[in-house]
Amino acid sequence: MTGEFAFIAALRALASDPAARGLNDDCAVLPFGGEVLVLTHDMMVAGLHFLPDQDPADVAWKLVATNLSDLAAKGAAPVGVLLGYQLTGGRFAGGEEPFVAGLRAALAHYRVPLLGGDTVGASAIPNAPQALGLTAIGRATHTPVPGRDGAIAGDALYITGPVGAAMIGLEAMRAGATNPARAPKLTEAYRRPVALLAEGIALAPHVHAMMDVSDGVLLDARRMAVASGVTIAIDSAAVPIATPEHRRAEALRWGDDYQLLFAAPANAQLPVAVTRIGTVLAQGAVPLLLDGAVPLGGPLGYTH
Amino acid sequence: MTGEFAFIAALRALASDPAARGLNDDCAVLPFGGEVLVLTHDMMVAGLHFLPDQDPADVAWKLVATNLSDLAAKGAAPVGVLLGYQLTGGRFAGGEEPFVAGLRAALAHYRVPLLGGDTVGASAIPNAPQALGLTAIGRATHTPVPGRDGAIAGDALYITGPVGAAMIGLEAMRAGATNPARAPKLTEAYRRPVALLAEGIALAPHVHAMMDVSDGVLLDARRMAVASGVTIAIDSAAVPIATPEHRRAEALRWGDDYQLLFAAPANAQLPVAVTRIGTVLAQGAVPLLLDGAVPLGGPLGYTH
Repeated sequence: MTGEFAFIAALRALASDPAARGLNDDCAVLPFGGEVLVLTHDMMVAGLHFLPDQDPADVAWKLVATNLSDLAAKGAAPVGVLLGYQLTGGRFAGGEEPFVAGLRAALAHYRVPLLGGDTVGASAIPNAPQALGLTAIGRATHTPVPGRDGAIAGDALYITGPVGAAMIGLEAMRAGATNPARAPKLTEAYRRPVALLAEGIALAPHVHAMMDVSDGVLLDARRMAVASGVTIAIDSAAVPIATPEHRRAEALRWGDDYQLLFAAPANAQLPVAVTRIGTVLAQGAVPLLLDGAVPLGGPLGYTH
Repeated sequence: MTGEFAFIAALRALASDPAARGLNDDCAVLPFGGEVLVLTHDMMVAGLHFLPDQDPADVAWKLVATNLSDLAAKGAAPVGVLLGYQLTGGRFAGGEEPFVAGLRAALAHYRVPLLGGDTVGASAIPNAPQALGLTAIGRATHTPVPGRDGAIAGDALYITGPVGAAMIGLEAMRAGATNPARAPKLTEAYRRPVALLAEGIALAPHVHAMMDVSDGVLLDARRMAVASGVTIAIDSAAVPIATPEHRRAEALRWGDDYQLLFAAPANAQLPVAVTRIGTVLAQGAVPLLLDGAVPLGGPLGYTH
């Protein structure tokens, strides 16, 4: 998207505060009272982040889960969310009720209150894409709050679970004309991602760097390496995948899975079952090595 | 907008927490770390909240100022904002740069840091309206934090300044083909509203109820009366207006002025120059009286 990177750079330059790392792919972290506030805001737009005819209940769930996943990567416990909701003008058969049902389910599942927000009218332009926003507010459970910039040479790189399930899910959605009833199990990872809040809180005291895998394990690992000033070497065969083996290369480049990716000392006793997928090295010629070489085959993940 | 009220009611029902009053027209207020956090989130959509060809610098300013105005009404000091920004796909000659310039100006004016947020791609639908969101985070400077529900019979009703300036400004914008250079002074109130943060902080210890006038002084006074379980009587001639006298009735029904409206004891020594415009009475047959009668002449203000 033309100009996006320049725009983000301009926004980042606006914010002299280091907390401004919370733009697009990270949380803002700031002391408040005697505790530490962790904040994130993500938007979702129909056609870009969800299918225009997707069940609004699933859209609501995903909006909540993806924002809470950002808190999970900080070891933060959610204290509430604010919703920005653009009305659909009755585009859906059930009006706005399916969205409310999905929101209710997600908030109940994560025991997070809806604190407030804003609703705006259906746009005057017919079939204009719906835009949604969610702000998630969390409380740090461990300080210093894990960033993506703390990986140290000698650390091991870990992931909490398999990647590629959302890719399979989206394919099943498209094949099934977005009717999840035709393949509920296959599509679930795409429709109803899980925010690993308990895992994030348990891991936070043990990690040097942590992030959620929203855009693909290779791309996100590369971001961690750049932020930390190290090189990260990934063993592709070690990465757990939810796809057939012949699609491993794709699974490593696909986002939307929301596993936690973290660097921790190789001998750390971790409280969560995780898989070691690589090693943190001193900064070399490139930030990311895959099986000892620069990864080939196009983009490392989903850039947005 | 069909279904909007049902939708908002459903969202409110979702939130068992009283903090959920922060939906559409109020802030969320919650204890955090020994202090009190005040949060608000507003969306703005092109064609609904700003003119599609309006200068993006003014749009950015208004997005910041209107959210900070919500904090002002709580006597809260802002600690930061999160931005949700939908790219325009280069629709504007200067790309996204004018928006960044306006955002920079507003943040510098109010000395508020940009903490983070999200940018999303320009939609695949040509000319789809741009949707923006802003979350403002504040720190209460006085507790209990003023609500809109605390007005007491016997209180006087006050306003911090004139209404109607934004109405005149929007008319001038439309007449000038949205080019503010043709009438910069007239259009300023509409383009660059002011959040009365210092006034809100100074008044908070003295008021029983306070809100900002975003949708019209009559409509917002009625909301305060309903929330407080009282009747509010306004003397229309006492309301300061920024319009010619013959447009007084309109000025009382127009929003976007962001003055603070508050109820305080009639003998209170107030630290800010304000105008008394009415009296809080015990709950009568109707929540709002204008010059002793039920207001006639259509909607009381801008409902959205």
